[in-house]
Amino acid sequence: MRRLHVLYGALKLLFPGGRAKPWSRLPSCRWASFRKDATLPDVNSFVARSKTCGELRSAHIGQEVTLCGWIQYKRHEQFVVLRDFQGLTQILIPQDEAASHLRKLFSDAPVESVVRVTGIVIPRPPGQENPKMQTGDIEIKAETAEVLNYCKKLPFEVKDFAKKTEALRMKYRYLDLRSIQMQYNLRLRSQVVMRMREYLCNHYDFVDIETPTLFKKTPGGAKEFVVPSREAGKFYSLPQSPQQFKQLLMVGGLDRYFQVARCYRDEGSKPDRQPEFSQIDIEMSFVDQDGILALIEGMLQYSWPKEKGLVKIPFPSITYDEALSIYGTDKPDTRFGMKIIDVSHILRNVDVGFLQKSLSEPYATAKAICIPQGAKYLQFKDLESLKELSKSQFNQFISCLILNGNMKSPLGKFLSEEQKAELIRTVKANVEDVVLLAAGQHKKVCSALGKLRLKSAELLEAKGLLLRDPSAFHFLWVVEFPLFLPKEENPEELEAAHHPFTAPHPLDEHLLYSDPRQVRGQHYDLVLNGNEIGGGSIRIHNAKQQRFILETVLKENTELLHHLLEALECGAPPHGGIALGLDRLICLLVGGSSIRDVIAFPKSFKGRDLMSNAPDYVDPQELEPYHVQVTWPLTEAKARTN
Amino acid sequence: MRRLHVLYGALKLLFPGGRAKPWSRLPSCRWASFRKDATLPDVNSFVARSKTCGELRSAHIGQEVTLCGWIQYKRHEQFVVLRDFQGLTQILIPQDEAASHLRKLFSDAPVESVVRVTGIVIPRPPGQENPKMQTGDIEIKAETAEVLNYCKKLPFEVKDFAKKTEALRMKYRYLDLRSIQMQYNLRLRSQVVMRMREYLCNHYDFVDIETPTLFKKTPGGAKEFVVPSREAGKFYSLPQSPQQFKQLLMVGGLDRYFQVARCYRDEGSKPDRQPEFSQIDIEMSFVDQDGILALIEGMLQYSWPKEKGLVKIPFPSITYDEALSIYGTDKPDTRFGMKIIDVSHILRNVDVGFLQKSLSEPYATAKAICIPQGAKYLQFKDLESLKELSKSQFNQFISCLILNGNMKSPLGKFLSEEQKAELIRTVKANVEDVVLLAAGQHKKVCSALGKLRLKSAELLEAKGLLLRDPSAFHFLWVVEFPLFLPKEENPEELEAAHHPFTAPHPLDEHLLYSDPRQVRGQHYDLVLNGNEIGGGSIRIHNAKQQRFILETVLKENTELLHHLLEALECGAPPHGGIALGLDRLICLLVGGSSIRDVIAFPKSFKGRDLMSNAPDYVDPQELEPYHVQVTWPLTEAKARTN
Repeated sequence: MRRLHVLYGALKLLFPGGRAKPWSRLPSCRWASFRKDATLPDVNSFVARSKTCGELRSAHIGQEVTLCGWIQYKRHEQFVVLRDFQGLTQILIPQDEAASHLRKLFSDAPVESVVRVTGIVIPRPPGQENPKMQTGDIEIKAETAEVLNYCKKLPFEVKDFAKKTEALRMKYRYLDLRSIQMQYNLRLRSQVVMRMREYLCNHYDFVDIETPTLFKKTPGGAKEFVVPSREAGKFYSLPQSPQQFKQLLMVGGLDRYFQVARCYRDEGSKPDRQPEFSQIDIEMSFVDQDGILALIEGMLQYSWPKEKGLVKIPFPSITYDEALSIYGTDKPDTRFGMKIIDVSHILRNVDVGFLQKSLSEPYATAKAICIPQGAKYLQFKDLESLKELSKSQFNQFISCLILNGNMKSPLGKFLSEEQKAELIRTVKANVEDVVLLAAGQHKKVCSALGKLRLKSAELLEAKGLLLRDPSAFHFLWVVEFPLFLPKEENPEELEAAHHPFTAPHPLDEHLLYSDPRQVRGQHYDLVLNGNEIGGGSIRIHNAKQQRFILETVLKENTELLHHLLEALECGAPPHGGIALGLDRLICLLVGGSSIRDVIAFPKSFKGRDLMSNAPDYVDPQELEPYHVQVTWPLTEAKARTN
Repeated sequence: MRRLHVLYGALKLLFPGGRAKPWSRLPSCRWASFRKDATLPDVNSFVARSKTCGELRSAHIGQEVTLCGWIQYKRHEQFVVLRDFQGLTQILIPQDEAASHLRKLFSDAPVESVVRVTGIVIPRPPGQENPKMQTGDIEIKAETAEVLNYCKKLPFEVKDFAKKTEALRMKYRYLDLRSIQMQYNLRLRSQVVMRMREYLCNHYDFVDIETPTLFKKTPGGAKEFVVPSREAGKFYSLPQSPQQFKQLLMVGGLDRYFQVARCYRDEGSKPDRQPEFSQIDIEMSFVDQDGILALIEGMLQYSWPKEKGLVKIPFPSITYDEALSIYGTDKPDTRFGMKIIDVSHILRNVDVGFLQKSLSEPYATAKAICIPQGAKYLQFKDLESLKELSKSQFNQFISCLILNGNMKSPLGKFLSEEQKAELIRTVKANVEDVVLLAAGQHKKVCSALGKLRLKSAELLEAKGLLLRDPSAFHFLWVVEFPLFLPKEENPEELEAAHHPFTAPHPLDEHLLYSDPRQVRGQHYDLVLNGNEIGGGSIRIHNAKQQRFILETVLKENTELLHHLLEALECGAPPHGGIALGLDRLICLLVGGSSIRDVIAFPKSFKGRDLMSNAPDYVDPQELEPYHVQVTWPLTEAKARTN
């Protein structure tokens, strides 16, 4: 009795006719096959035009074409420039008597009116071609035209790129979207995301799975919008990420999951945040950190537009500790140098009281950054502002050495010539540089100098010294974060540095039970030009370990996570994943000034939609089915004084 | 001065370095270009296995492989069947002393535990191949193995397909997802949607744009979930569709928009509805009804899995009036006949009082359906149940003619032989058929017979007579819906049949001002096998017409739609679109019994997530920032009695 009668015969019953193909025959796990790409009709066969405004060239001369678009420009009752999403085409209005109705039609139609024009493609007269215009070799001699919609006087000119406040842009977003910047940003976003999908779904057979957005509060999940349900007192919650669902999908054996996930976070008024945002959400089974890193590097290389330069992989990586020591931050901008350099060995020997006092603190250090040509470009008030910034934000005193031929600095007096020379050698300073020095507790010193590094780069760039190539993209992995951090309000207690599902570093697992503060997590952040654009981790797949961390280390109530803990007991595979912030990534890619530049209908920094005026008052009757009522602050106040 | 100095020189400033390519040079409007598909590493290079459990064949014999998966089956301490998303592979545990640790390891690991096995691919002994198993020619002789996670006793067996209640499946959804049905459904869904994306984004340059889900209430928009904001009394609303945004995108010149849009509708407890659902949301500028229909037909043909048969295009179409007359519904199941046939000309001459009375009602008619072999398959109680159904749901009396050799029916007595013959000829009845007759008001008669048509098909199929091929897909367009319908609560007033943005039929535009009830709309529904799977319309682009319809015809307060009305005045192009219900479409495609079978984490019919227990109670403190409090029904009741 050697043979196994596997149950797959039974599947025939479930999928009669053999139409389903449950376990694919091919290494590529296609569960369906599709027709070879048939010849599809031209897109213009669906619409009222024969060509777009961007595609006509000399080769089309002599053809009759129909264009639809917006009047961008009119001149001398003879020329109209028509615009659509793809470009501009010049229309020539014949000046003969037979065309007088066309002249009147265009004369009556204000700029930004929508028209349809039929005419013949003709060459422009020699010498009058416009090389700056894609269609600049030709124009359309109009035969017939029709105004499809008249446009009223607009609050701003669509072609007037510069002169709009952001509030006006937001209020009339549908006009702002006509600008070439917004057209470019939204189209590039769509195409980059499509490339990511091709990489993940077509090449790597990830399954695109939509997860619910009506969920429940996660433990400690402040910042979650609530949605009242029809059951009195019960609320859904709009999740900050599909974290639990993606892990449960791995327990469910989906192996590789992917989603462009809508996420929600109620952060009140924070600049450049949005109450709803999108992330490229990924999870894989049987994967380790290197696997996720390689997958994402490949994805970004694959989906990066050629025009933006080649993405070189693998990306460099740096540990959290190194990032803090060298750049004073866990999201270093590695497009420029000015690294933080340890000068403790020099300053420990300098006999200045406050210095010695600082260096006697626990975890004390002395560090420096060198501002290239700082002495040439930065003024006294600039340096004062840097020192002030450090004082106010970090309570960290900064010594400033101006290397302008000789060393101007109060501290300079106390340094021997040899110490001066060694300091200059150590920080690799040149004539006309400025050296900023700080002594004290390691983390504070590094954070302060890290901030000053960025601030002085800004100052130098404002004066015309380019430090950071705006067309360069420097990716960096930051790894080996601490797993837990002391709670700000009570440093005796610990909280998860990222989230409580992150697995400990394999080398540190034993420390979980003895010294959890020393445990590094298998968490990784992806940084681009000094911005965190993604983060992820290998997750805990062992129910006991997860329970220990939740209950004993973090003192969380595990009741809310009962389903997840139980799932880990039911054959959960090792798994890990990542989420990339799509809005931020695309914003950096297009060089936008805010994520609002890559979102079709963004909210203001107060979370308002200035176009539709959302959020808005709601009839109390409409709240009744949800068993909630508004607690008006005024009424509250009144009630309290009574 | 003939030359136009078009402003595009200025764009160079906005996109320095020429890296942006604003108006593409090609008819295909690629705004970015991408590297030619490089050779990408194998997916298994990212993970801890070298092969999946579905891909090994005789060609791999002799190779050392590492598999990861779940223990599906164990037998005789000698065989283990390992399962992953892609298939099953049999592991052979050597029986020699050196492998005793492997025997112990597998013996200790319960079914559904997760293991990693390394071994050599060997052929199965001759005669012991399993042709029902994709990998049935080989097995893996285990060398090393590791239990990655033990599985506790499960509430149900993963391979036990039949014996789960739906509530249990929902509670342990992560286990249910391991079933081959759910794996198939979710993977097929992902791949079909990816094909749709390729069709829309790659072939037709649609722009995939994410629109907000934190919006505001639409006028008359009952059924919308509200989300309290931090501004007292102000609420966001979770939109039922991106209708306004997609129209505004067209005003914004995006030309073609597409999104797999998450939509929300609070319908309480309705079977086979979900509080959140997904639709393929599409909008185009300068398009007419035929354009949208052709686009969608092409998309469904393109994205339909080969295994499900070729989708023939164009789809047949039928007007709303025809659908009602012939099928008694606006979503006809055209997989089978049994059409409703007019027999007024015969019954008008039959001298029966109640018949004459029915036929004297306004819009009166007499109609019939012929149930093939009804006399053979249906029992007396079946026919009684049909009559009862018509009576209770439509208050419509049904006469029943049983053609069993002679005509058995109370009505039969009143028919002349000639009338009988003509009736049989008209409804094309055969011996052993049953004819159901109804007389009265047209709409009521048709609706009742339409319902009986479906019900009798069900009855016949339950008795083994197959009327509807379960593998057939019959698409049908329903067009020319009325634009307005009388309000149920007050038939003197009108409401929009679909939504107030639907454009009137061009031939009926003049009736808007004289007889709006007669106006047909440019709305179209897509029906598949009797299920509405999509709907859309050409929209109103004229602000005056939109305002007239909202204010004068529908008596709506236009204040809430101010932004949309203003947008229509700012150069809105003619536009139209459609939305397909993705969950329903995929459910029909895979032959699921409910849309819950194609959603990874569905809610119960009461809107509950049985796995996580959402929605749930929330600490009153957490509601404070949102200025809402719960109105407990009990407290309310108490307050009223006091």
